[in-house]
This record gives sequence, structure tokens and C-alpha cells, in this order.
Amino acid sequence: MSATDRLVVGIDVGGTKVLGVALDPADPTTVVDVARVPTPDGAGPLLDAMADVVRTLDRHGPVGSVGVGIAGLVDRDGVLRIGPNLPGLLHVRVGDELDRRLGLPVRVDNDATCATWGEYVAGAARGVRDALLVTLGTGIGGGVIADGELVRGAHGFGGEAGHMVVDPHGPECPCGRRGCWERFASGSGLGMLGRTAAIAGRFARGVQLAGDREAVRGEHVTRAAAEGDAEALAIVDHFAGWVALGIGNLLAVLDSSLVVIGGGLVGAGDLLLEPVRAALPDHVMAPHERADVQVVAAELGERAGAIGAALLGDREAIESRTG
Amino acid sequence: MSATDRLVVGIDVGGTKVLGVALDPADPTTVVDVARVPTPDGAGPLLDAMADVVRTLDRHGPVGSVGVGIAGLVDRDGVLRIGPNLPGLLHVRVGDELDRRLGLPVRVDNDATCATWGEYVAGAARGVRDALLVTLGTGIGGGVIADGELVRGAHGFGGEAGHMVVDPHGPECPCGRRGCWERFASGSGLGMLGRTAAIAGRFARGVQLAGDREAVRGEHVTRAAAEGDAEALAIVDHFAGWVALGIGNLLAVLDSSLVVIGGGLVGAGDLLLEPVRAALPDHVMAPHERADVQVVAAELGERAGAIGAALLGDREAIESRTG
Repeated sequence: MSATDRLVVGIDVGGTKVLGVALDPADPTTVVDVARVPTPDGAGPLLDAMADVVRTLDRHGPVGSVGVGIAGLVDRDGVLRIGPNLPGLLHVRVGDELDRRLGLPVRVDNDATCATWGEYVAGAARGVRDALLVTLGTGIGGGVIADGELVRGAHGFGGEAGHMVVDPHGPECPCGRRGCWERFASGSGLGMLGRTAAIAGRFARGVQLAGDREAVRGEHVTRAAAEGDAEALAIVDHFAGWVALGIGNLLAVLDSSLVVIGGGLVGAGDLLLEPVRAALPDHVMAPHERADVQVVAAELGERAGAIGAALLGDREAIESRTG
Repeated sequence: MSATDRLVVGIDVGGTKVLGVALDPADPTTVVDVARVPTPDGAGPLLDAMADVVRTLDRHGPVGSVGVGIAGLVDRDGVLRIGPNLPGLLHVRVGDELDRRLGLPVRVDNDATCATWGEYVAGAARGVRDALLVTLGTGIGGGVIADGELVRGAHGFGGEAGHMVVDPHGPECPCGRRGCWERFASGSGLGMLGRTAAIAGRFARGVQLAGDREAVRGEHVTRAAAEGDAEALAIVDHFAGWVALGIGNLLAVLDSSLVVIGGGLVGAGDLLLEPVRAALPDHVMAPHERADVQVVAAELGERAGAIGAALLGDREAIESRTG
């Protein structure tokens, strides 16, 4: 049951789109409606677009609570502190601004933190009290559930596993350091491995698909691998080793029993997940004591952030009533 | 206040000694007595020695609860699963065995997990809800407090930050992988950096202190650095960069606001901590948003594990009463 008998709404604000979901108050794991608009430029138009998405979802009944997930570092007051994809929202008190437009309390969090909560309550990590979400997209996002709770951290910046340094001699990262995990284990990392192989003459099919060695991207690797191309499969194996290395680091610190892989790359399915599972024992401490650790695909897809945002907004509404 | 008006006892079992403390039930942050014995070989003698330590502490009054910290991977049932320093206790149900000898409920955990709880309740991390303990000794141990709770993980193996891989091309680690953080940032790592510098002709004072280039260890580096030796100070700076790199990785994931440094190396004090503080902004994501993060020395010294074990045992006794 939700906090009220009203719709539980969540919106996920990314660099290209604003995606909203309305959840059934009687069963807040069920999506009853979805709405989306392209992300406009500037704070005012973007906040208006977010309010419009909520109003669109209103058609199924009154809205009881709103949660928002935003791409970037969001502090504990729901203010975007660093967000290269959403310059318009930087330092804006998004919750207050939406409350002013909607007359509803709004809770704001990082989008990957929301997605983690979504997968924990309503997706692939349901009921697993020590779980990780790792989203492999252009970069790596994610979040941590420890003993059934989100690890948000002191500022709200927790879960940025993509910026663990795993090779101080590695390629430069836009964050200012070298060899962050996401340089190797994201979609961009897969593209880099594909190009390196192509340039070394070890990925003929990729060159064919991309038209040029320098144009090889991650999608060419996964496409060629899906065709059974041996060179592409070798690249995926190499890539899976990097994914497993970072997961191994997280397991050393957090000892999770479930790793949920989300993001664009999970579309490749077991083609990617199987090599990661195979590589993991070489990358975790005491693998024979962790034989129960599972690596699975996320279940909520692109809606994970919005669903999690909705659930967190509802939860805050419950807490503000009871406590 | 403790669970009862009886003494709150904790023991820390390491490869060389068994250290016990008794805490004041009226103020369980106060140590009223300490006892220690060398660690005997074999399960029976070691369990007897542990029981004897508890009985020794009995002289100040009856004991109400016992907590035990053990070096190694301890599972959620308090059984040592991996423990190179304590082969005798491997797979032993330590809690049940001690209960049988003492007639008291006994709670068992990893020693660094206990030390983390000790620093959080009664030491340098008092009241800081998102804090890390990193102990720099022969290896690196530690633990995580997230939103006021220990991060134990699914099996109880959480907090093994020393086995994050930070350079896959780095030196081999006894854990079976390469380039674990503790290869670089522990006392052993400092020794390795010292020897490398000595062999390259860049640590004359170290060679003098050790008698031989190959005999240079971490303590020679800290001693020479304390004398103001410029080459030693350069080695400490390099070392501090490795310490900061791993802390940066932990902060990316956990977003802690306090890092407590413990272990043998913390004896070097600000000689070590100041370079770590200076290096940290280069190793964390979004340093200007984390200007409040503090790096401080542990306060409880070698008693941290026993004090934390006592506090955890007392806490469990409270919980089992209140249900």
C-alpha cells in the first residue's frame, strides 16, 4: 500500500528526455501510466516540462506524491551540485520549484540512486538485502543497497562506482583523473577496446560494420559478437574481465550477494552477462566463499529511475506522516 | 547505559595475542580493565585462553556480555571462514564454544569490523554517520559505517578495502590477484617503495638505517622521514598518493565525510596524515563538493577491536532482550 489512495508519481530527468511514471497506490510496483517529453534547455522550461509530465499523469486520478531522479550529483537537499547533462538545473532547488508549480511535496535524488531503489523494491533485486546496481551505458552509474537500505553517503553522492580508479596509468577521464572504471567497463570502454582491436587488425567485422577502424563503437562489438564473430567475442571477453574487476572491488568492500547489471549494454543479454559471470571468480576475494553471488540483468529497463523516484517520494510521504 | 549492570567484555584475537577489555556498564565507552595473553596454537588451547581472558576480567564484577573480534573473514554465524593468522580457529563455532566454557552469550565478528564500531561509538568517528576506518598495517583492514550502521554484507565479509584492485599490472597479492590496494598503501607497500628507492640510489639514509638496500622496511622510511630526510619525505609523499587513491575510490562509492586511519602506520602521525590530506583532492571525484571530508587518526589504538567487540556484544544482548 502507498501512503495515500492517490497516484504515486516519479520522474526521471536525463539529458535527452523527461520520463514520468504513475504507480498504482494499491500496488506501487505496478506502472499504470507513462509520459515523456524531450528535455528542454534552461531551468524554467525544464521545471515547467517536469510539472507538465506530472499533470499528464493526473488523468488516472489525483497525484499523492512526486519523486524526481536527476542525472548528476544531487545533494541531500535535492539540489544538483554537478550535472554536465543538465546545466539548466545546476544549483536549482528542484523540489521547492516543483512544489510551487504543483502544490505537492517533491523528493529529489540522483537518478541511479532512484533506479537502485526501483530494482530493489520492484525489480531484479527484490528482497535481496545486500545488492548492487551497476548501469553500463556511456559511463557507469549505480547504487548500493546495504542491509536493505540505500547507501546515500554524507552528501548524497554515494554509488559513483564508475569513478573508482582501477588503473592509475589508464586513459584520462573527464572527471580529471586517470583509469576510472568507466573508462574500461562502460559502453565507451567497449568501443575503445573495439577500436584498439580494429587498429591492431584483430576486428575485421567491426571495421566492416563501422565503415572505418576509428569509427568502431561498442554497438559494433556487440552486433558482431551476436553474429558469432570470434574476434568480437574475444573483445567481449576482455571487456567482461574489466567489468568483473570493478564488481570484485565493490564486493570486497560491500560483500553484496547480488549484482544487477543495467544500462544500455544489458540489451546484449547473456552475450555480455555470461562472460562477466565466468570472469568474476578471478576478480573477487575468496570466490569459494561467495559461490552464491548472482549477476543478473536489471528488470525495469529505462523506467527504473522513474519507478524508484516514485517509490522514494511515496516513502518520504509515509515517513512525514508517521514521524 | 549497557544492557545490564554487569561488565561489558570484548576480546580481540590476533595471530600473536589475545587482548581483552572490560567496559564500565554505566558508561560503556570507558575501559575499566585490560588483559592479554599470547595466542596459543590449536583450537582447544586458544578457546581456553579466550575464556581465561574473560575470567581474568571478572575481578571487577560479574560479566554481562562478551563480544569477540577475530582476524579473518568471519561469517554471519561468527564462524571463521578464511584466516591465515588463526588456522586453529578455522570453521570453529567460536561463539558456541565460548558460551559452553563461560555460560554467557558470545557474539563473534571480524576484528576490523569491531574496530570500526569501536571508533564509531567511542573513538575518532563518534557521531559521524558516514565514516570509514582504514587500518594501515602489514595489510589494509577496515570497515564502513553508512548512515550510522556497519556495512557487514551478505556473508559478513564487508570492509575488505585492502583488496580493491587499483593496478591490474601491479605486484602479486597473496589473495591471488595483482595490484590490490594493500600492495601499495600498507606498511608492506611503504617498505616496497622504500626498497625501490634504495635500489635506485634515492634513499641513502634508509640503506644506512637498514644496513642493506634489500632490508629497507616501512619503519626505516618513517624514521628517516621523522628526521627530516628529504628522500624519505619524497617516498612518504608517493606513498600518501597511493593511500589517497584508495580512499578516493571508497569515497566515490560510499561518500563518507570522515576517514579514520588506524593501524601501525598511524604511529607516524601527521608525518603521514598531512601528505594524505594534501593528496586527497587529486584522488576524489568532485573535491570542491567534499571540502568538509576529514582524515583523522584513530583514537582507540590497539584496543579498538576489543572495545568494538565488547560494544557489539552488549548491543546484541540489548537486542535479544528487547526482541
